[in-house]
Amino acid sequence: MSDVTGRKRGRPPRTESADTRDRILAAAREEFSERGYEKTSVRGIAKAAGVDSALVHHYFGTKEQVFEAAVEIAAAPALNAPDLVADGPLDGVGERLTRYIFGVWENPATRMPLLAIVRSAVTNETAAAVFRRLVAAQLLRRIAAHLDTPDAELRAELAAAQLVGTAMLRYVIKVEPLASADVEQIITRVAPVVQGHLSGP
Amino acid sequence: MSDVTGRKRGRPPRTESADTRDRILAAAREEFSERGYEKTSVRGIAKAAGVDSALVHHYFGTKEQVFEAAVEIAAAPALNAPDLVADGPLDGVGERLTRYIFGVWENPATRMPLLAIVRSAVTNETAAAVFRRLVAAQLLRRIAAHLDTPDAELRAELAAAQLVGTAMLRYVIKVEPLASADVEQIITRVAPVVQGHLSGP
Repeated sequence: MSDVTGRKRGRPPRTESADTRDRILAAAREEFSERGYEKTSVRGIAKAAGVDSALVHHYFGTKEQVFEAAVEIAAAPALNAPDLVADGPLDGVGERLTRYIFGVWENPATRMPLLAIVRSAVTNETAAAVFRRLVAAQLLRRIAAHLDTPDAELRAELAAAQLVGTAMLRYVIKVEPLASADVEQIITRVAPVVQGHLSGP
Repeated sequence: MSDVTGRKRGRPPRTESADTRDRILAAAREEFSERGYEKTSVRGIAKAAGVDSALVHHYFGTKEQVFEAAVEIAAAPALNAPDLVADGPLDGVGERLTRYIFGVWENPATRMPLLAIVRSAVTNETAAAVFRRLVAAQLLRRIAAHLDTPDAELRAELAAAQLVGTAMLRYVIKVEPLASADVEQIITRVAPVVQGHLSGP
């Protein structure tokens, strides 16, 4: 698991600066997910972390760089999804991927950084660029690499569109009955769509 | 079509106050779609429309009410989509709905209010409530009313999720190759998914 949560058990003692870095990143994730990119300031992150703004700049640089660092580590669970593609038969990939992604969204601890990405990427070009680098380049290209069709990247993106759109309506905008529906009911309906995009005709 | 664009031809002459209202609404749509709900102010809208803030409050009330008025009229093309459900055989509804929605998004004039809704609804609870009233209550419930299944609303929302997610990745975040793909290629892949959600097993 991540350094933030796993550092107490069986790891060498960490330096104070690593603790400070983690505290800044945790504060940054919270600020970005609640306010979105535009309304979050380095000063606000520093205040929430109990440090001076100069220290935030010292460790990470610009606001964009803080955003990318905060989001990249926290999005790691979601970005690991491509292993699921190779991790079994191709005709079960829709179910594995959908179940995994909704697992990440259903868990409040891993939902927060995803909210930060979605909220920020739709309102700010800098954050959108980070989204494209992380999600499109790291996640979707790797999924596409497992598919043996010429339009593999487009297929991966349309599968992602069903997942992103469902997450937006359920977790962000909270449209009913989708927001309160049992997650298993949603997975049952969405998994075949993801499968169809990835391996259908 | 709407009063804003259609008033010059074959209509009775309008009052000056109707012109002012329209100018305020046009300015509001532009501000909300570029900045999102939170960063838009009544003062900024008034300035863009060349009027006093008091006049904006006089015609519309609060910022939330300006947002709802600006978005409701402009979203009318997208909200007319449910007629398409009844307007032909049920097994062609996926194609009709998908083609219509992408037509609205591909047209810069009608795209702007949709951008305003999406950008605002994901970052602000007031705007999310407007989204739920307009899109969920007006559009999705009416589509669901045409379907003869117990989970009709959930099906309509999952179809909307594919459309919303695709629009987000293509028009807002601009992920490639989806952003530059031919719209017909996207409709070919998305229409069967929408159809499946609405009338599949």
